[in-house]
Parts: sequence; C-alpha cells; structure tokens
Amino acid sequence: MLRLLSVNFRGLADHKTLLSLNFSTSSVMAKSKFEYVRNFELDDDTCLRNCYIVVRLDGRNFHKFSEQHNFMKPNDNRALGLMSRSARSVMEELEDITIAYGQSDEFSFVFKRSTTWFKRRASKLMTHVTSQFSSSFVYYWKEYFEKQPLLYPPSFDGRVVLYPSNRNLRDYLSWRQADCHINNLYNTTFWTLVQKGGLTKTQAEERLSGTQAADKNEILFSEFSINYNNESPMHKKGTTLIWEKVNETTTKWIKKPDEGETEINVTRIRKKVTSHSSDIIGDQFWEEHPDILESDQC
Amino acid sequence: MLRLLSVNFRGLADHKTLLSLNFSTSSVMAKSKFEYVRNFELDDDTCLRNCYIVVRLDGRNFHKFSEQHNFMKPNDNRALGLMSRSARSVMEELEDITIAYGQSDEFSFVFKRSTTWFKRRASKLMTHVTSQFSSSFVYYWKEYFEKQPLLYPPSFDGRVVLYPSNRNLRDYLSWRQADCHINNLYNTTFWTLVQKGGLTKTQAEERLSGTQAADKNEILFSEFSINYNNESPMHKKGTTLIWEKVNETTTKWIKKPDEGETEINVTRIRKKVTSHSSDIIGDQFWEEHPDILESDQC
Amino acid sequence: MLRLLSVNFRGLADHKTLLSLNFSTSSVMAKSKFEYVRNFELDDDTCLRNCYIVVRLDGRNFHKFSEQHNFMKPNDNRALGLMSRSARSVMEELEDITIAYGQSDEFSFVFKRSTTWFKRRASKLMTHVTSQFSSSFVYYWKEYFEKQPLLYPPSFDGRVVLYPSNRNLRDYLSWRQADCHINNLYNTTFWTLVQKGGLTKTQAEERLSGTQAADKNEILFSEFSINYNNESPMHKKGTTLIWEKVNETTTKWIKKPDEGETEINVTRIRKKVTSHSSDIIGDQFWEEHPDILESDQC
Amino acid sequence: MLRLLSVNFRGLADHKTLLSLNFSTSSVMAKSKFEYVRNFELDDDTCLRNCYIVVRLDGRNFHKFSEQHNFMKPNDNRALGLMSRSARSVMEELEDITIAYGQSDEFSFVFKRSTTWFKRRASKLMTHVTSQFSSSFVYYWKEYFEKQPLLYPPSFDGRVVLYPSNRNLRDYLSWRQADCHINNLYNTTFWTLVQKGGLTKTQAEERLSGTQAADKNEILFSEFSINYNNESPMHKKGTTLIWEKVNETTTKWIKKPDEGETEINVTRIRKKVTSHSSDIIGDQFWEEHPDILESDQC
Repeated sequence: MLRLLSVNFRGLADHKTLLSLNFSTSSVMAKSKFEYVRNFELDDDTCLRNCYIVVRLDGRNFHKFSEQHNFMKPNDNRALGLMSRSARSVMEELEDITIAYGQSDEFSFVFKRSTTWFKRRASKLMTHVTSQFSSSFVYYWKEYFEKQPLLYPPSFDGRVVLYPSNRNLRDYLSWRQADCHINNLYNTTFWTLVQKGGLTKTQAEERLSGTQAADKNEILFSEFSINYNNESPMHKKGTTLIWEKVNETTTKWIKKPDEGETEINVTRIRKKVTSHSSDIIGDQFWEEHPDILESDQC
Repeated sequence: MLRLLSVNFRGLADHKTLLSLNFSTSSVMAKSKFEYVRNFELDDDTCLRNCYIVVRLDGRNFHKFSEQHNFMKPNDNRALGLMSRSARSVMEELEDITIAYGQSDEFSFVFKRSTTWFKRRASKLMTHVTSQFSSSFVYYWKEYFEKQPLLYPPSFDGRVVLYPSNRNLRDYLSWRQADCHINNLYNTTFWTLVQKGGLTKTQAEERLSGTQAADKNEILFSEFSINYNNESPMHKKGTTLIWEKVNETTTKWIKKPDEGETEINVTRIRKKVTSHSSDIIGDQFWEEHPDILESDQC
Repeated sequence: MLRLLSVNFRGLADHKTLLSLNFSTSSVMAKSKFEYVRNFELDDDTCLRNCYIVVRLDGRNFHKFSEQHNFMKPNDNRALGLMSRSARSVMEELEDITIAYGQSDEFSFVFKRSTTWFKRRASKLMTHVTSQFSSSFVYYWKEYFEKQPLLYPPSFDGRVVLYPSNRNLRDYLSWRQADCHINNLYNTTFWTLVQKGGLTKTQAEERLSGTQAADKNEILFSEFSINYNNESPMHKKGTTLIWEKVNETTTKWIKKPDEGETEINVTRIRKKVTSHSSDIIGDQFWEEHPDILESDQC
Repeated sequence: MLRLLSVNFRGLADHKTLLSLNFSTSSVMAKSKFEYVRNFELDDDTCLRNCYIVVRLDGRNFHKFSEQHNFMKPNDNRALGLMSRSARSVMEELEDITIAYGQSDEFSFVFKRSTTWFKRRASKLMTHVTSQFSSSFVYYWKEYFEKQPLLYPPSFDGRVVLYPSNRNLRDYLSWRQADCHINNLYNTTFWTLVQKGGLTKTQAEERLSGTQAADKNEILFSEFSINYNNESPMHKKGTTLIWEKVNETTTKWIKKPDEGETEINVTRIRKKVTSHSSDIIGDQFWEEHPDILESDQC
C-alpha cells in the first residue's frame, strides 16, 4: 500500500531474478527460493457457473454489542439504518449484486447468476463483501448513532451459498424473511410484556413458551391493544435493497448564441440503490421488478 | 442483532414447527417450507488438521487510496502504524493467532496448527479476520492520521493458505519478507531519484530498469550518500507481531491489621502482543521465540 | 470382506473401548489412540443440490491399448459394444442414472438432479461408477472379443461435473456428440485414404490438414463414392443409453382346479436400459423421452 | 479409444473452428457453441502439497459377495491373495505409491508426499487407483479362485485422505492394522465357536457380546486349545506391500574372441513389490525400511 508506485511493483516483485539480499542477521537469501510456497494456495473455490451466489453476513457477539451500545428493544432504528447504509455501500462498491436483504444483525447479498466478478472465487467474494460492510459500519456509525460513541470495532462473519434456480433463490430469501417475521413477533410480544406489562424477562419468557403466532397476536391485541399488522413494515419484513432506474432532474444554465444565458431542466435516468420493506415471499414484488432474476432456461 | 434476547432466539427460529405467518401481501406461509435451502450450504471448507492456517489480507485499490490520502513516499509511517494497530486488534480478538507479519498493504495471520477455532472452517476464519481488520482500520484511523480525514471506507480481501510443516511456514514468511525487502529497496531508490535527484517518475523508472540489488545500493550510496543498511528496520523488514510474556508491576495499598495502610508492588506476568522489525528469514528470531512453532513430529 | 459377519462388525470395530492388543513386535496398543486420523477425512465433496451430476470416464492410454488388441480402424464394433455393455452394467447397478452417452473410449453418466444416492458425495459417485465400469469391462470382454485375449487389466479415470439447468446439461451432451461427429468424420476419411487410397498415415494426415467438414465429405464422395450420411449411426452419433418401459410377455402354465394345466400369456411392464444412436443435439429426442429431464422450475 | 490415431485427435477436436455439422435430425451445429460447458468442471481438487496422499478402497456389498462366492470363514486365503495381487497391479501401474496396506475387503495406497503424479488431482488419483484395482480383481480372479466362477463384476469405492506428517501417516496405518487385529480376533473366536463349538451364529454372537480381547484369547485357548499368537500372521496383521531392491541373477552365454562361448552370471538390482505380514504399529518395520517415509523437515 504504502510504497505503491505507478509502475506495477507487484509485477516486479514476482521476477524470478536471483537477488542477493544482504540481511543483517541472515545470509544471502533469494526470494525465488521461497516462492514455491505459492503453490500451496488452492485456486479451488470458483463458484459453479449459472448459479446465484449469496454472501450472508452475521454479526459476531451482537447480543453483547447491542447491550453495550444501549440498543432500543425490540428494534433499534439507528442500528437498522446503519446496517442498511453499510449494505448500500457494499452494493455501490461491488459489481453485480442485484438484490440484498437484511434483518436483525444479518445481511444477504445476491450476485447475479452470470457474474464473473473476481472470477467467481468464493474467498474473494465473501471477504470483499465482509470487509466493505465492516469498514462502512464504523465509517457511517456517527451518522446514525450521533452522540452514542462506538466502543470498539465490531466483527461480522461471512459465508457463500449457491442456488441453481430462481425457485431456490426465492425460497432462500423467503426463509430469511419468515425468520424475520417469527423473531419480530416474538420480540415485540416479549418486550411489550416486559416494558408495558411489568413482567420480568424470565416471566415473559415463560409466558411465551410454547405459544403459536396466533397466541402472540392475541396477547398483543387483547392485553395491550396492539394490532401487530400495524407495526412498522421494516420491523416485520426487514429491508430489501435493489437497483432501480430513477429520473434525476437538474437545472443548468446554457448560453445560447443570440439570447444570452437561459435556464433549462435536464433529466437523466440513473441507476440507484433503493430500499423497500416489501413482502418478498409472494409473487407481487418479483412481478414488479422483473430484472432481478435471470431466466432458468439459460 | 437488534432484537437479540437473553433467550437464544436463533434456537427458537430453528424450530420446525409449522407456524402460520399472516403476511399482508402473501398468504399463509411457513418458514419450515423454505428451510430446505439450508442444505445448499456446503460445510466443506474445514482446513486440514495439523497444518498451519495462514490468512493473508490485501488492500483493494490501495494505490489510489494512498494517493487520495496523501501518503508519504516511499513509506508512510502513519499508514504502517495503522496497519499494525489493526493487526493487533485482530490478534487480541481472535484466538490462536501466534504470529502475524505485515508489509505495505498486506498482513498475514498465522493460526497455530492445532487450532480448533471455528472448527477450522476456512470461510469463518478468513471473514472474521478480514472483518475485524477492516473495522479496526476505520476505528483507529484518527489515532494515526489525525487531521487527515478518511474519505471513504476501504476494503481488504482475504485468503486462506495451509502449510503442513514448520519449514513451509517459515518459507512462506521468508517469502513475504524478501518481497518487502525487494520492494522497499526499489521504492527507496526510485523516490530518492525523484525527490532528491530531480528525475521524473518515468526517468526514474527507466534508470532502474534491469538493475540488480547491488546497483540500487550503489546509486543510493554514491549519488546520495545513503547507506541502505541504515534505513529504518521497519521499512526494510516489515512488522512482526507475536505474543510475549511481560512483567506488569502495579502499586497497591494494603491494609494490615496492626500497622495501618502500606504500599506494595505487585508484579504479574501477562501475555501481550509485541511488535518487532526483526529478520525472520534466519534462525535467530525463531530460536529466541521457540513457542511460536509447534513440533513437526505431531 | 473376508470376515464379514451378519453382525455389523464395523460397528464393533468403532467402539472406543481401550482394548489391549498383544502384538508380538509392538507393545500394548489401542485402536482408539489412532482413531483421531479419521478427522483428516474431509466430508467436503457433497455435490450442490438441484444440479445434474455427470460422471465422465476416459480410458487411460487407450491408443496403445487399441493397437495391442488389434482394434479395427476407424471403428471397432467389438470395442464399442463392450463399452456400451459395461455402461449398461453401471446403470443397472447404480441408482438414479437417467441417461448415459458414450463415444470412442469415453462414457458420461448423468445422475438426476434430485438424486440423494451416496448423499451426493462426489468421491463415492465417481469411484463407484469407475469401479463398476472397469470390472465390467474385463468381465464382459470375452462376450465381445471372443478369441482375442485381454492382455492386461485396463484403467479408466473419472471426474464429476455439475450442471444447474436443463440447457447446460443438454449443451454438455451436445458437446460430446459434436466431438464424436468431428472425430468420426476425420477418422473415417483418414482411414479411407490409408486403407483404400493407399496413402501412408503421414500422407493422409497432411492431406487432411486444414480441411473443413465439407472438404472431408467431398473427398469421401468424389474419390471413394462413400456418402458419409450413410455411415453407421452408432459411429456418427455414439451410443445413448436410457431407461424405457417395455412390455415383457412370458408364457406360464397354470393349474386350474377342474381343467388341469393350461397355458397363459402374462404381460408385465418392466423398466429396461435401451440403446440408441439418435441425434441428441436437436429437440426431437428429448420430446420423445420427456422423463429424462426434471423441471428447471424446481 | 476406438478411433485413436497416432495424431493427437483430441488436440484437433479442441480446435475452436466453427465447423458446420450436417446432422440428419438437427440443423447446423457447432461444437464450439457448446464448449462453454467445460468451464463447469472445477479444477479444484488439487491435494495440498507436502502431505501424504492416501487412497483407500472398500468393497461394496462384500458381505453378500463373499457368501455368493463361498468364501471360507473366518479368512479366505484365495480372496486375500486376489486382493493383494490387485493391489500389486495398482502399485506397478501407478507411479509414486510407496506403501500399500490391506485387510478384509479394503486396501490403502500411500502416495509419497512429494508426488506430482496427475498434478496431485484427487479425482484422478482416486479413480485411477479404483479402476486399476477393479479391473485387476476380475482379471486375476481365475488365478486365485480357479473353478469357482466369478458371478458378476464387483465394485469398490475409493476416497482420498491427506496426512501432513509422518506421525499422522503412521497413525493412520496403525489404525487400520489395529482394526484388522480386533476384527480377526473376533471373527476367529466367533467361527471357532460355530465351526468347532457347535454354536449357532446367534449363540456365538451372544457369547462374545461385551467380551474383551483377553476373554476371546481365553475362550480360544481353554476351550479349543488354540493359541491366537500362533495364528497366521497375514490374518492377524494384514498385508503390507512395499518396493524393495532385489538382486536378480541371470545366466548368459557370452562369446569371447578366442575362447568361444562361456557361461557367466549377471546380477542386476531391480525394484520389486514385496509383500509382508509385519507389525507396522511399532518402530522396527520403519527402521528396517527407512526409504518409505520422507522427512518432516521438508
């Protein structure tokens, strides 16, 4: 990094010339003598062609992290906003991600099935996504948490999963959204019992043990007059990021030969990452955004 | 993250109970219906036992990054310091890294050959190292760059390489240090020709084309009275981080029954990450720190 | 093999009981002490779900093998028959192969995309196919080569390739059949020039150097009155094996209470491996056998 | 196979020339159009350098196979001989196998840690070993089973395991030999109870349930006067195959200028596969054959 020239110094460094290195403690050594160790790197992680590549991130020890940073319960909009902002940074920096879905401390990024980004190498894909997300999370922290300081640099892990068909990919995203729903209904009811019902955490846990979705809806409605359907869509459905074309109108002053300057509006179509709290289990979302998926017939 | 309870909500979420989810736009859906997608995750990346696991990070587009942030040439001590600080953060947060070596925009982390951290899964190891390093790089930026603002969140990629023997591992580290030496000698001479010799970058490049190490030493010495051997060890040899036992003496006041309070010194042995600019190609460093390597006879 | 009991002796052997083994040359040893080596086996080769699994075999050093066993040129029907017979043995012994295609010294076996045979483990799939094919090749040799003895046991290598879509799979099979066509046209022309035209091998090679398909057709037709279109379909298109339902009528004698024995015909529908020399590049074959492919919409 | 020329027809076939193939049922097609499917082959299975590569074969359904072919119990020397003969065929045909160990229906082949055979590709290594073994098993059947016909072609599966150190490799072989010992002691006692003691299989099984090695030795000695230590070494310890240098003396007639013909003995040193029933758990075997293992210090 620090000594990078406009010449490709890595290319130079790869020269197999037998350079005598006069090190103080070791004798004459040659880099070429050691270069065999390169062959231990396995170029073995190319993702199978014609499959969607999903990189999923998860926060490490985020239960503790959320307590130390006083996250609101059951949902902290600052944290959710920061997660989405970091995910947008990933989409803008890395090519070929067509959709991303996030909830709680996790985010999934879907590369299009025909991507050749980084030669489809799994390790490159997962580490770049994780790195960009992690550095963005710290970089944008202040925009969302303002006076609440970040106490230490957090960590995320990443993994790669391949899906060969549109059905498989949609089922993956449905699985994550159903997970979001189940957790949010549980957490909403749990924290309502604690915060408004005056139960201890243990009591709330016991109260919810063995209950079904309908039971939790009923508790919220009959005991606290909360209609779960009216809760925030982002909390119930998570956040979906996609690329959309938007019209951008800007005003320009143009000098015409005879008339002097005149003001005109210039409208350009630009691709932009947009955020949605939609249901992505049903068909409607996918019919409205037909460009996200590629045909199975390829 | 945001709705994590003291109960293990992930455990709950994994329940294969057929929950009816009443989504507004989709009909009754069950998470269990989608969970088959989990089987597409391949648990296939366990690192071979009894091998050293090396995770190497490289900065993405750091040539551009270094220009945009006005790095000093040929070496920027603020940037080198931040790289080492971030690497220390990785060592302190992640278990079983026994040695790390960094130069330029790269850093290598060596997990001990018997580690069982994250079940030796390559994806977990490489993404956690990359994530912790990336978030630390942004987090500690200000400590090193002070008024020079960070313009955008940077990205690093990571990879995993396995080495079965002590010889292989030492040759890997020697390879990286020889690379450091070659680049630093080149860059030192190049920038001396530009900064002190008044050459353009193109002229300097041409002047150095085809030269050997001895030629560059000679240029530095005869034309600029610079003895390369006296250059900064950190620039010539990079940075090696290891765990060492250090004595920590603290002063405590102790109340004794008859005498009242008295001051005593308490010395404790603590493990700490220490930084070295040593030659790691020769034997001396390894003889002085015999705990880094494990026996090949295992 | 040799000491297998009806009890599961492997289960017994896995017992972690500390058995004292009284070996003559070594001292007291326990199997459990060594069992850690099992963990070096990587269960890492599960094939991605919802993809077709193709195992392709190739003969090793079959040029030499064909000369040593006096194969007819350009095509030896005994050898082609034995290849197909061995492939049929593979299909009958191993589950879930829906189609196999062979030409020259190679054969490809396609497992259905939903197969769970051997838990989709690549190593099991490829070694079992290769093993069954190899042992069958020797076992059935005499049926095809009669008095021509097999001089030594031949060897085949195998590999696994995954295809996520029907299009990909059909293109794979088209690729192999196009390869068959190109080679057969070349070889037919080459050997006609040698056998009927009196050219040496070197002369024939030179004559064909740089020629297109049309040129070779022209040589065959104008110089030797051979219409390539009338050549054997098996030689031009290779051999395709599939499962088909066939009616099998057998005659049985049945004893009726009053009338004594009487002869009746019993017709049963049975699945059987059938052999075809069809074009599998176009759509017709696939429309006639709609059960071979599974839907991409899964 | 069948149309192989002395020219490299595969090379020709790989030409990306757009050949018009005039197929009867399909239209003009070009092989190059389909060749993209090659990229689905993952060259991802190179074995880590500097590790021993073990390929282990196991018979499929050999319990049934042994019954159908009337194997002697508890050990059938014809079958054990055929297994070893097939293993020798593997060692003679494939390079760089330094030691092989077999017992029951399994055989392990150890490639030297520095082998570059087949570029260390796991799939090539395991399929070639399995194929050569399987075809040899059928090929040499008659030499061992004489009038007992082979009823059908048998199948073996194969797997690859890597071992980074001499200790790991020796422990692997010890594990297999300890397994042999345990099974053979059990089977010897079981079949003695059945064949000489008149017990049914179920009774013998019950009698042995929960017994230790010492108990089985005692049953054999006190009830049947059998000293297990005097049993066949091959049954107790399995078969180890290695390469050894042997002197081969041949007699030649030489014509001398003045004296006429005279007979002389010519002794040449030749490498040959030799078979041993030695203990390979202790050190002695390895001290006597120091060339099998390569140094860990590499």
